[in-house]
Amino acid sequence: MEKKAYYPFTAIVGQEKMKRALILNLINPFLGGVLIKGEKGTAKSTAVRALTEVLPVRKEAAGCMFSCDPDDRSFQCDECRKKENVEVNFAKMKVINLPVSATEDRVVGSLDIEHALTHGEKKFEPGILARANRNILYVDEINLLDDHIVDVLLDSAAMGVNSIEREGVSFTHPAKFVLVGTMNPEEGDLRPQLLDRFGLVVEVKGEENIEMRTEVISRRLDFEKDSTAFIKKWKAEQDTLQLKIGQAKKLLTEVVYPEDMLKLIAEISVSLGVDGHRADITMVKAAVTNAAFEGHTVVTKSDVKTAAELVLPHRMRRRPFEDSTLDIEAVFKKIESSEAV
Amino acid sequence: MEKKAYYPFTAIVGQEKMKRALILNLINPFLGGVLIKGEKGTAKSTAVRALTEVLPVRKEAAGCMFSCDPDDRSFQCDECRKKENVEVNFAKMKVINLPVSATEDRVVGSLDIEHALTHGEKKFEPGILARANRNILYVDEINLLDDHIVDVLLDSAAMGVNSIEREGVSFTHPAKFVLVGTMNPEEGDLRPQLLDRFGLVVEVKGEENIEMRTEVISRRLDFEKDSTAFIKKWKAEQDTLQLKIGQAKKLLTEVVYPEDMLKLIAEISVSLGVDGHRADITMVKAAVTNAAFEGHTVVTKSDVKTAAELVLPHRMRRRPFEDSTLDIEAVFKKIESSEAV
Amino acid sequence: MEKKAYYPFTAIVGQEKMKRALILNLINPFLGGVLIKGEKGTAKSTAVRALTEVLPVRKEAAGCMFSCDPDDRSFQCDECRKKENVEVNFAKMKVINLPVSATEDRVVGSLDIEHALTHGEKKFEPGILARANRNILYVDEINLLDDHIVDVLLDSAAMGVNSIEREGVSFTHPAKFVLVGTMNPEEGDLRPQLLDRFGLVVEVKGEENIEMRTEVISRRLDFEKDSTAFIKKWKAEQDTLQLKIGQAKKLLTEVVYPEDMLKLIAEISVSLGVDGHRADITMVKAAVTNAAFEGHTVVTKSDVKTAAELVLPHRMRRRPFEDSTLDIEAVFKKIESSEAV
Amino acid sequence: MEKKAYYPFTAIVGQEKMKRALILNLINPFLGGVLIKGEKGTAKSTAVRALTEVLPVRKEAAGCMFSCDPDDRSFQCDECRKKENVEVNFAKMKVINLPVSATEDRVVGSLDIEHALTHGEKKFEPGILARANRNILYVDEINLLDDHIVDVLLDSAAMGVNSIEREGVSFTHPAKFVLVGTMNPEEGDLRPQLLDRFGLVVEVKGEENIEMRTEVISRRLDFEKDSTAFIKKWKAEQDTLQLKIGQAKKLLTEVVYPEDMLKLIAEISVSLGVDGHRADITMVKAAVTNAAFEGHTVVTKSDVKTAAELVLPHRMRRRPFEDSTLDIEAVFKKIESSEAV
Amino acid sequence: MEKKAYYPFTAIVGQEKMKRALILNLINPFLGGVLIKGEKGTAKSTAVRALTEVLPVRKEAAGCMFSCDPDDRSFQCDECRKKENVEVNFAKMKVINLPVSATEDRVVGSLDIEHALTHGEKKFEPGILARANRNILYVDEINLLDDHIVDVLLDSAAMGVNSIEREGVSFTHPAKFVLVGTMNPEEGDLRPQLLDRFGLVVEVKGEENIEMRTEVISRRLDFEKDSTAFIKKWKAEQDTLQLKIGQAKKLLTEVVYPEDMLKLIAEISVSLGVDGHRADITMVKAAVTNAAFEGHTVVTKSDVKTAAELVLPHRMRRRPFEDSTLDIEAVFKKIESSEAV
Amino acid sequence: MEKKAYYPFTAIVGQEKMKRALILNLINPFLGGVLIKGEKGTAKSTAVRALTEVLPVRKEAAGCMFSCDPDDRSFQCDECRKKENVEVNFAKMKVINLPVSATEDRVVGSLDIEHALTHGEKKFEPGILARANRNILYVDEINLLDDHIVDVLLDSAAMGVNSIEREGVSFTHPAKFVLVGTMNPEEGDLRPQLLDRFGLVVEVKGEENIEMRTEVISRRLDFEKDSTAFIKKWKAEQDTLQLKIGQAKKLLTEVVYPEDMLKLIAEISVSLGVDGHRADITMVKAAVTNAAFEGHTVVTKSDVKTAAELVLPHRMRRRPFEDSTLDIEAVFKKIESSEAV
Repeated sequence: MEKKAYYPFTAIVGQEKMKRALILNLINPFLGGVLIKGEKGTAKSTAVRALTEVLPVRKEAAGCMFSCDPDDRSFQCDECRKKENVEVNFAKMKVINLPVSATEDRVVGSLDIEHALTHGEKKFEPGILARANRNILYVDEINLLDDHIVDVLLDSAAMGVNSIEREGVSFTHPAKFVLVGTMNPEEGDLRPQLLDRFGLVVEVKGEENIEMRTEVISRRLDFEKDSTAFIKKWKAEQDTLQLKIGQAKKLLTEVVYPEDMLKLIAEISVSLGVDGHRADITMVKAAVTNAAFEGHTVVTKSDVKTAAELVLPHRMRRRPFEDSTLDIEAVFKKIESSEAV
Repeated sequence: MEKKAYYPFTAIVGQEKMKRALILNLINPFLGGVLIKGEKGTAKSTAVRALTEVLPVRKEAAGCMFSCDPDDRSFQCDECRKKENVEVNFAKMKVINLPVSATEDRVVGSLDIEHALTHGEKKFEPGILARANRNILYVDEINLLDDHIVDVLLDSAAMGVNSIEREGVSFTHPAKFVLVGTMNPEEGDLRPQLLDRFGLVVEVKGEENIEMRTEVISRRLDFEKDSTAFIKKWKAEQDTLQLKIGQAKKLLTEVVYPEDMLKLIAEISVSLGVDGHRADITMVKAAVTNAAFEGHTVVTKSDVKTAAELVLPHRMRRRPFEDSTLDIEAVFKKIESSEAV
Repeated sequence: MEKKAYYPFTAIVGQEKMKRALILNLINPFLGGVLIKGEKGTAKSTAVRALTEVLPVRKEAAGCMFSCDPDDRSFQCDECRKKENVEVNFAKMKVINLPVSATEDRVVGSLDIEHALTHGEKKFEPGILARANRNILYVDEINLLDDHIVDVLLDSAAMGVNSIEREGVSFTHPAKFVLVGTMNPEEGDLRPQLLDRFGLVVEVKGEENIEMRTEVISRRLDFEKDSTAFIKKWKAEQDTLQLKIGQAKKLLTEVVYPEDMLKLIAEISVSLGVDGHRADITMVKAAVTNAAFEGHTVVTKSDVKTAAELVLPHRMRRRPFEDSTLDIEAVFKKIESSEAV
Repeated sequence: MEKKAYYPFTAIVGQEKMKRALILNLINPFLGGVLIKGEKGTAKSTAVRALTEVLPVRKEAAGCMFSCDPDDRSFQCDECRKKENVEVNFAKMKVINLPVSATEDRVVGSLDIEHALTHGEKKFEPGILARANRNILYVDEINLLDDHIVDVLLDSAAMGVNSIEREGVSFTHPAKFVLVGTMNPEEGDLRPQLLDRFGLVVEVKGEENIEMRTEVISRRLDFEKDSTAFIKKWKAEQDTLQLKIGQAKKLLTEVVYPEDMLKLIAEISVSLGVDGHRADITMVKAAVTNAAFEGHTVVTKSDVKTAAELVLPHRMRRRPFEDSTLDIEAVFKKIESSEAV
Repeated sequence: MEKKAYYPFTAIVGQEKMKRALILNLINPFLGGVLIKGEKGTAKSTAVRALTEVLPVRKEAAGCMFSCDPDDRSFQCDECRKKENVEVNFAKMKVINLPVSATEDRVVGSLDIEHALTHGEKKFEPGILARANRNILYVDEINLLDDHIVDVLLDSAAMGVNSIEREGVSFTHPAKFVLVGTMNPEEGDLRPQLLDRFGLVVEVKGEENIEMRTEVISRRLDFEKDSTAFIKKWKAEQDTLQLKIGQAKKLLTEVVYPEDMLKLIAEISVSLGVDGHRADITMVKAAVTNAAFEGHTVVTKSDVKTAAELVLPHRMRRRPFEDSTLDIEAVFKKIESSEAV
Repeated sequence: MEKKAYYPFTAIVGQEKMKRALILNLINPFLGGVLIKGEKGTAKSTAVRALTEVLPVRKEAAGCMFSCDPDDRSFQCDECRKKENVEVNFAKMKVINLPVSATEDRVVGSLDIEHALTHGEKKFEPGILARANRNILYVDEINLLDDHIVDVLLDSAAMGVNSIEREGVSFTHPAKFVLVGTMNPEEGDLRPQLLDRFGLVVEVKGEENIEMRTEVISRRLDFEKDSTAFIKKWKAEQDTLQLKIGQAKKLLTEVVYPEDMLKLIAEISVSLGVDGHRADITMVKAAVTNAAFEGHTVVTKSDVKTAAELVLPHRMRRRPFEDSTLDIEAVFKKIESSEAV
């Protein structure tokens, strides 16, 4: 059985940063995923599930459980690589759910004991990570995830590969996924190593504007009363968004950026004291992806600002007794006054 | 064996908020359940068990262990969906007990080993969550529930679905339930994430009015002395209540609310600083359901006040060093003076 | 093998409250059991084991391992309910021991693997809770009981039923018992939820009166030297007590109480600030049972005082910075001056 | 294989209280065992193992693994009780070792799986507690014992019986033992409940007298150099002690005490504020046993003093901010000046 | 499946100490490995994975899963030692990954159950340590490694051997590896015993020079855009480095050091108060290896300085309240002014 | 496979106390083993492994896995005791390694399941303790040993016997060993009970003398460069030492000590306040063994001083606020001025 009626993504009131972060990841799966932090009842998981209806279509190997990319032979599963010609399907990307209560076996896969007993040979029953390849791996309440499952996720995310070894048999399959997590900070923090895996981070809050809040309630009640009618009403907007995402995916390789933009971004990172270089690289990619979504092929100041807002805030190092409030506004000013973009 | 004699729901002295919260959930299963907090010996679990006798009757798929709704094909179990025509039964909703000592296997279901050995194929033995679908899932001492079982409940509650995966076999079935929990705060708090799942929360206390307290004792002693006689004596009141609940269920879809009510509710939520939007939506639904129970088709000020009392108190954010006592009386005044309702 | 020689209950020196609490529970199994708190070496467990010789005789279903009540068909086990006529035995109530080191399997019962292998069908081997039905369940050092076993006990005590589920098979049997626990406060406290399950609580101390203490030692030494002779010497007193308990059981349903007694008890509870209503109801029952034991059919002031002493002390809420010493003497005065009794 | 050469008990230099406490328990197994507390290297375990050579001879059922007492039919194992006549053996009491690393299965016994598979019926393989019946159960480093094993010991010690239940089969056998423990307080304390199980407690220290200390070393070196010669040299002393213990056992039932002695002992306990009555009773028994060992049939002041020294010190309650130093010297004075003995 | 495209080692911008430490270990596997400490996103694991393309070629036993050295018979596995002549292969050293989530079985190897069932004999399925022999064992996030796995690593590292014992069968194989670990100090410290196993330790930081940082980003984006083209562009530099490493390996045995160099190093260690002698020995070896890499056969001042920088910093004992900042500059000065080198 | 080349014991620079302590234990296995405490990299484990080459030869039962002593029938394993004549082998003592990561099964032995399945009878597969009998049991990083394994070691060390009980089968074999442990105090302390098991304790430090430190490095580098040549160079010294140890073993029983020496040692212990008598006895034995090593048959002042240095330091009780620095120099003076030796 499968739940059918998801709330339309485009019907979500406000929450622009969250929506943008999700869309950019659909366009460019190398952005590193999104972490959505926010208080209870702020439609975090509604938004992620709503993605289902606007996911882009892409090529995948027909009949392959790992949705292998027919064009990237070096990153296919063993089955696909054995074939001389991989048959191609066109299919939508998927949202794969990783429940907090999932066991390690369910995540990484397990030995199929029935098969072993009946056929006398060992076989792996792939787990959630198998289905996650080239899809979105969604973890609600990611801060409640068992430490050991987090280690498994980090290992997979680092290598793009899931390796299983049980009773002397080993199996390896591609496991490159867009990690999307939601969390309520009241229930505890995220381990720094896991936090760092997320390219983009957004914080969401309940709407405080009365008109908009009324609209939130009103739409939700409409949806609950008659989801079919509600979905129909939003169909045009949904189709438009999906189309726009599809076009952005195609435009992506054509986007260029001004020569000095990298230097500007490096300067911002150094002045903010962010750790490592991941922030810099993600900012460039996010700006490029945003440009593609906006439909132009040259990165603009506005793209860099959008990127900065999604990439930087959670990476500013907290230095005790120092002025760490070199805040996002200052970054914006720097971008504005720069001649790089 | 089954215990037969439950104390009549209508014979419970006082505790009006608790009784109302339970009744509203019987009428409208989408209210999100009830959490009853209170000291020892305040008839919390007596009240929940007493529900058994006033539960509404509804349609369900004949012979289906998940009590599937014959009219909602998209949310049926695999068995029901395979059938062209689902045979219809009329049956009462049920109260399903989840004991604190229950193991995960018992809650989510487990592999039927005997069946596997005899028939050579794997089969799932459904657990408590299977029986809970479309029924009331009752957890006494919910604050003592093992963290892992809580994760399982939250996963099910979020999706309306229970997914089991054991030794390479997976099984999924609908698991939408009205969660009713009781707890004694002396034994520890509830995790915020679980608390938030409850649409309504009521606190109960021992009766302090001497006349009423005497009545509490007297009725309880009568019941214990001769439960059959006692139940007989209250039969008329019980029948009346059950009838009223049945009628309210029918009336529910006809209830309308004044245009500005949503705005009023949004204003209340913002001024109280409640987290997210779940409170707003639940207040609307509770007010509508209360109107249906009161037998009118337009929501009144009184309905909104009843809803506010059951929905808001446990959702006011506690801000240190701030005046958080913008209390329920102030909310009532706001409703009174509003022209929205 | 079975230990035969128990120290005679009537030969216990002093400790009147403890002895009275135990006797009242033998007469009326609905009083909710007794918790005996006291320092090491105060004959707590001696007293409970001594009960063995003065236990009342009652009807039970012949050959039934749950000692089902032949007259209460709605609370019989599945076997008994299937029979058209349940054959009746007369047998003494029993003291069933629950050792602190008992595993969960031993308490709730377990799957009989041998039977499954030989007969090809699953069968439950009932545990301690099966034997405890309609008997006394005695837990020495109850404060050392494993938390999970406590959860199991609380689940059973709340429902009067023990439910087992193992590998897809479930079994349910009646498990209504008089819970008697002893504990040494030095070894840790009792969980509030478990404490509340006890209708009566008594504290015992070593005898400080030299004459009586000498008598304690002297009798104990006599018993250890020649238990047969000692038991013989006390036979008459034992027989008298057993007879008196039997008569009280019969008289119990005839005892009435003055109209205003419930109100008096409600007032006492409110003024003491006890939690919930369990205290009030238990006080009425304890007073009624005490009257039956004293051989009169109308409750007297003395009965209420005895009840108050056994029911109230452990239920007075501890309020910080408030005068909580509205003590038992004040309660006595209130009873004395009341015209209700 | 079995170690043969134990250091002779009589060759132990000094440590008179420890030696006396052990001897009294050999004469009278109802004294409740001995706990020996002391720093490292003070020959605690040497002393207990040395007991092996001076253990008294007693009757036991021939061929019975529980060493059942042929004369006490009510406390025999099931096998012995089935026999019409129990054949009698004369055999020495034994020292049974319980290693700190022992598992629960090894202590209480376990199901004999091999037997089950070969013979198709379940059988118990008795454990250490089976061999401990009517013998000395010795636990070196008793304060390091796992909490669960302690629970098992306490259950057995309280009932004199060991009950095992595994996979639906239960087995019960007598398990009355003299518990002897040694501990080094540096490694942690004993649980109060376990401490209270010990009738006698002695503290040992390294010898500080140079002559005696030299003797300790010298004898030990002699023993290690040629244990056979050393044992031979002490044979006469060993035989004498064993004879004396045997005679004391016979004399034990004849010893009487002055009428007022119980009162004196009660007064001492009350004035010291010891918990419960176990101390009083143990003091009487210890005094009587000491008299038997000294070869007289009337308890003397000296016997009471010896008993007081072994029974009282660890039972004086520690009251904060109170004068708890009503010490053993004061007790001695009280005994001296009493006319009771 | 196997990921193909690694970022070229020579294309890493800056991070000279890290690169040098890794190269020296490739040349001389007896240097004791490298620990790389640094904040998130500093290309630590990129660098280690990049090693793959510049690894030296060496002899190994053909078909041996432990890559045994054909010339060192005393350190071969059992299979190789049985052969009269070991066939020789030339193959590149490998980087073996040890994921933090790996179980003990996966690390040390496990019993092959399938083989046991089919062939009736036990067989070991070697684990990660088998593949690590004579290769690089790489642990990302080494500070998150389970304590028990750390114990296993330390046992292997100390003996150069992995011993497995399961169900009465034992197996031993050579397990000499170059341990390379990366860690983020934010996630916790390393156990001192494990830290000490590392011959060299380097700390890395994000580049703060804007030009170089821009270069880091630029190259990374180029690589991600078209890895094939990028790799091709760097091929010459990569080949040069691999050649240089190969030549250094051959030169290594020819490098000599001035007579007094050992004394100078001993003086440095004593004056810094480093623990033990491992630092001294590693410094000599690192200086010698560096000389080989630089292509000269006599150790120079510069070689000693390079060695000092990689060996000393993490071994200076931290003395509270003492001047521990006898820093690396002072060491350099000492080396400069010494006549030993 | 087996590592062949151990660093020669005689080539260790300095560390005289450590070397002496190890040698004395080879000569006299009853000295109680050695604990070597020291910072990282101080050749602790090198020294223990180096023992391999200088171990004395002794008689053992041919073909016996426990290396039973043919002359001590009372301490042989069951197999040996059954034989009328035990065939004698001459073989070197062995160093048995107990890795910190060893499981309990591997230490005490386990049931051989394969044998049980094939032959239908249970058989024990002996563990490390079996091989340790009459040999050196070496534990590197002994302070990291799991508490449960420590309990097992203590049980074995106390009795000289290892007892295993698994699934109703028991097995006992001799397990008398010389316990040698090394530890780095940075990684945590040793449990007092385990510390006390060690007869001798030495602390080692890195060499601070520049000449000697240079020698340490130089020899180690020589050994690593060409271990065969290095071992050859030291062969004469090694042979001499082994011979000297063999002669000392023979001389041991002939060594006598002056009459008053025991008194002197007792005085030292009392004045230092050492716990128990184990120190005294060990000092006598160590002095006697040292005399044998030095080749004279009468203990001298120098022997007593050597013994004092190895036995006393770790046994001086730490008394807060007292002058505990009655140090080893004072002990030496006392010995010097004594006429006992």
